[in-house]
Amino acid sequence: MTKEISRATCLEMDQADPLAARRDEFVLPENIIYLDGNSLGAMTHAVAANVERTMREEWAQGLIRSWNEANWITKAMKVGDTLAGLIGADDGEVVVCDSTSVNVYKQLAAALDMRPDRKVIVSEAGNFPTDLYMAQGLIAHLDRGHELRLVQPGDSVYDAIDEDVAVVMLTHVDFKSGLIHDMDAVTRAAHDAGALMLWDLCHTAGAMSVNLNAAGADLAIGCTYKYLNGGPGAPAFIFVAARLQDQIRQPLTGWMGHNAPFAFDIRFEPASGIERMLSGSHGILGLSAVETALEVWQDVDMNDIRTKSIALCELFIDLVETRCTGHGFELISPRDASVRGSQISFIHAHGFEIMQALIGAGVIGDYREPNVLRFGFTPLYVRFVDVWDAVDKLTTIMDGNVWQDPKYAIRGAVT
Amino acid sequence: MTKEISRATCLEMDQADPLAARRDEFVLPENIIYLDGNSLGAMTHAVAANVERTMREEWAQGLIRSWNEANWITKAMKVGDTLAGLIGADDGEVVVCDSTSVNVYKQLAAALDMRPDRKVIVSEAGNFPTDLYMAQGLIAHLDRGHELRLVQPGDSVYDAIDEDVAVVMLTHVDFKSGLIHDMDAVTRAAHDAGALMLWDLCHTAGAMSVNLNAAGADLAIGCTYKYLNGGPGAPAFIFVAARLQDQIRQPLTGWMGHNAPFAFDIRFEPASGIERMLSGSHGILGLSAVETALEVWQDVDMNDIRTKSIALCELFIDLVETRCTGHGFELISPRDASVRGSQISFIHAHGFEIMQALIGAGVIGDYREPNVLRFGFTPLYVRFVDVWDAVDKLTTIMDGNVWQDPKYAIRGAVT
Repeated sequence: MTKEISRATCLEMDQADPLAARRDEFVLPENIIYLDGNSLGAMTHAVAANVERTMREEWAQGLIRSWNEANWITKAMKVGDTLAGLIGADDGEVVVCDSTSVNVYKQLAAALDMRPDRKVIVSEAGNFPTDLYMAQGLIAHLDRGHELRLVQPGDSVYDAIDEDVAVVMLTHVDFKSGLIHDMDAVTRAAHDAGALMLWDLCHTAGAMSVNLNAAGADLAIGCTYKYLNGGPGAPAFIFVAARLQDQIRQPLTGWMGHNAPFAFDIRFEPASGIERMLSGSHGILGLSAVETALEVWQDVDMNDIRTKSIALCELFIDLVETRCTGHGFELISPRDASVRGSQISFIHAHGFEIMQALIGAGVIGDYREPNVLRFGFTPLYVRFVDVWDAVDKLTTIMDGNVWQDPKYAIRGAVT
Repeated sequence: MTKEISRATCLEMDQADPLAARRDEFVLPENIIYLDGNSLGAMTHAVAANVERTMREEWAQGLIRSWNEANWITKAMKVGDTLAGLIGADDGEVVVCDSTSVNVYKQLAAALDMRPDRKVIVSEAGNFPTDLYMAQGLIAHLDRGHELRLVQPGDSVYDAIDEDVAVVMLTHVDFKSGLIHDMDAVTRAAHDAGALMLWDLCHTAGAMSVNLNAAGADLAIGCTYKYLNGGPGAPAFIFVAARLQDQIRQPLTGWMGHNAPFAFDIRFEPASGIERMLSGSHGILGLSAVETALEVWQDVDMNDIRTKSIALCELFIDLVETRCTGHGFELISPRDASVRGSQISFIHAHGFEIMQALIGAGVIGDYREPNVLRFGFTPLYVRFVDVWDAVDKLTTIMDGNVWQDPKYAIRGAVT
């Protein structure tokens, strides 16, 4: 891309965009350019309407009967089946429940149980912290000499995988840089060493096509509130390859994972399929939101998603680098689009203040310590002209030293 | 109570009821008598309105900013503080998160960690199964020779508590019979033996006054979707006495339980207070529903709740026993109201069919295997005349053998 790009060019790109009409399905605030769908996705009109119906009809009118009559009892599996189609899984391999963190625990515990003679969990120092924290909590709890082996930035994941490794846990798309791991190759390396492979798809699901079964993945988890637009803190998902479902055991054995939850037996007997990964009762409001949020994907071609995602990201890099030259931004996302997710991250010594100033100007990205400005590009509702306008505002902020206003240096809790 | 009771008497009791106006705060279906608020509480008008606002304003318009600006990030603690007042806990001792099952796991794991030389968890064979299942999952996972010691029906809990016991886990109000444990006495017995005390308040919170701190309880959990009306599968709560919060460690160490979640340190460091019991991100829709559901309790005198609860239950027993004499119902709830929760259970050889016929007639109670008809009386919205009408319909069903219609014998998933 070159300097000849203009706002008019961007508008033309929007006109040619096969996904352009999808934006109408979302409720988006006026005068805001939202480049943070990788933290919290936007809401569709249908989600609000359906959650309201769930409350006013199913809950208030149906009351307890709705566990059967409105199929609440099977909703975690049904939504899982819908989601399975977006990540290359089959029916009966995915269930939607609990938080990503809790699901990491279940999967890691199950993996160690399946590899009792191995003591190492491999992950990356740059993985999203909660994944590492759950591994640490598990290891301390078991107290059986397990080790969390962290690949340091710049080092090779492959070098860390050996015969001591029980499970390799990686986030497919890095939350800071957007770097994509080679799912096929890493899974193969894990299997070659006799280890299990657990993929975290938080920044993948809904951002690009991915095929867990083609890669031979064993386990996966991910959240539904980023590119899947399930709502704040929406229930997460969990994938177990069908071939492992008979043998997998996870420790959070609540009644929803029981083979006959309403027989009220005293002894836990795991359900025969993916249901054994469930624990307690499903949060129906959150699950209803996810269920409806997934409807937007019904007629979407994931190739269109990926094509537009790459085009948005390339446009953003190009515009920042041409219009903000000399202002100290350093790209930390891969320049090669084929190994980059649907986000672009720059580092800058004053990243925090610059992001605050951008938010003040109506461009919402997010900031990650210690110095990362992160921008997510969600092809369902971000336009090319939004990219132009966002960089235009960034340029104004940098050229005019707007970010130096002391009010932008005030720190609160950031998300 | 005597045979002279009539429908007119019940209407008079409603007129004298100081809680009568509370019913107006709830959305209740026409022509239904709802005696299952102990499975799923009814919805208040305010809940639906606030969840809608949470979606349409906080999520759709505020987007990621709402984690700070709408205080999503502190909501689990804020709702916990509100709930604390209903269970005799202090600010900072309760947090609302995850499911009851997952919270049982955290608490039991934490208890075993605090009593490393003891190997026994005491509970009851009649406890709600998911509590037992979670204990079984924990024990199998740890694989360090722990034992789940179950008190059998008719045996004494006190006899099961000895110096080998790490933690006593009891449901304060039995889910089948409604029998209340003596919280002060059992807690004292656990402490005298050097054990920790974990109370499950699922059938207590909102049904009666209870005082965890006066009893010296260590740990508690409970759900918010029964008498607290938080909605289907609403997030549960967790209580840790302030004096234990510095030492408690639970294994599900997600980022929301970190001392500085947004510092993105690689190492988990637990938060200093009750926050360390959190794991992943809060489900905001479910949490908003609970937050608003609790508003109904603001001006409620828990003595009025208990007084009305007992009166409703006494009326129900009296009417069933006088009007359905000879039909084979056997009361399994305590006759002594002082040791009985806000529910009445009868067993009957044809309990399933009778409950189906009752539901067909617009009276919703629930059925618990193998033969229990369970009726919950929620003082906020159940009227005395509802009790009359429910028993009137039951009498018709029994006198006319309506329950023998084959359609009432069909079994599905029951809740």
